[in-house]
Amino acid sequence: MRAEIRLAGSGGQGIILAAKVIAEAAGIFSELNVVQSQIYGAAARGELSKADVIIDDGDIYTLEISTADILLCLSQDAYNRYSKELKEDGKLIIDSFYVKNYDQLDKRILSFPISEMSKELADSELFSNMISVGILTVVGKYFSEESVLKSVEKNVPKNFLDMNIKAVKLGFERAKRKYPEVCGN
Amino acid sequence: MRAEIRLAGSGGQGIILAAKVIAEAAGIFSELNVVQSQIYGAAARGELSKADVIIDDGDIYTLEISTADILLCLSQDAYNRYSKELKEDGKLIIDSFYVKNYDQLDKRILSFPISEMSKELADSELFSNMISVGILTVVGKYFSEESVLKSVEKNVPKNFLDMNIKAVKLGFERAKRKYPEVCGN
Repeated sequence: MRAEIRLAGSGGQGIILAAKVIAEAAGIFSELNVVQSQIYGAAARGELSKADVIIDDGDIYTLEISTADILLCLSQDAYNRYSKELKEDGKLIIDSFYVKNYDQLDKRILSFPISEMSKELADSELFSNMISVGILTVVGKYFSEESVLKSVEKNVPKNFLDMNIKAVKLGFERAKRKYPEVCGN
Repeated sequence: MRAEIRLAGSGGQGIILAAKVIAEAAGIFSELNVVQSQIYGAAARGELSKADVIIDDGDIYTLEISTADILLCLSQDAYNRYSKELKEDGKLIIDSFYVKNYDQLDKRILSFPISEMSKELADSELFSNMISVGILTVVGKYFSEESVLKSVEKNVPKNFLDMNIKAVKLGFERAKRKYPEVCGN
């Protein structure tokens, strides 16, 4: 088993923390091997933020993602830049509030109003990243719901733990409800 | 300019946070391009922890470090595993408290009792990572002392900020004093 996951969005959307939570869910709490990388610099200072996670049950020899198994796009720019780099049987999770202009016929796209869900949950878009982590967990099934909850607990500040846990669980539930054939048990 | 930096030690020594501070010092506060990656999994669950930072003033096309410009080894295991993967004109920073068995004739080695310095500073080894960041900053000169202090401020918990800043500055000072020909202005 090998999974290549790419998270992309705008600076400030918490992409890098989301990648860390996923990496540790798989690498620490599920005993898989994981390489996690992010780019800082030109892209990070501008609009685009990107982080990659490669999960493998064997050794990992390449750090590069060519085409993703799962791609998360939280902004239109992220979609425009990365949507072509998806495997034929990959899945593309979009925040339908920010990604308006996309290929409606692409069956690989799973669409959720992620930032709106975050605002309903907590009057803030701050939890879009953890809602995305929840969605991604049940779409990919590379690691368990339990392991991702443990990783959230390890990685978010204690005073925001409850809300982050709620956000991840909201992601689990909404994804299973909207796309049961993909996200069901 | 391209610099390949590898930080290695035991799990719990704060290697990944050190890599993040360096990456953001260069990528956010110095306007360079940076790729930062770490491995979780077999290595992370065992003794060895590793994080890489590649800094470039142009585009970065490879994520892999073959031989490092600067290698930090905070444990004997880290030295044994990675010391061969250093450029001929590279620098190898070791914690002389933990790395006892090394090539005494290798002129590339810069030796500091990093964990002892941390214990003197704060009765704890917790600040070995930030002392290392300070040393690495003046050894490499890829980004300024100011940019690394800003990055520390962004990345460490507020209640430990003062001590982390002291640790980084202790790294600057001790390195300049012990190896003025390498670390001087």
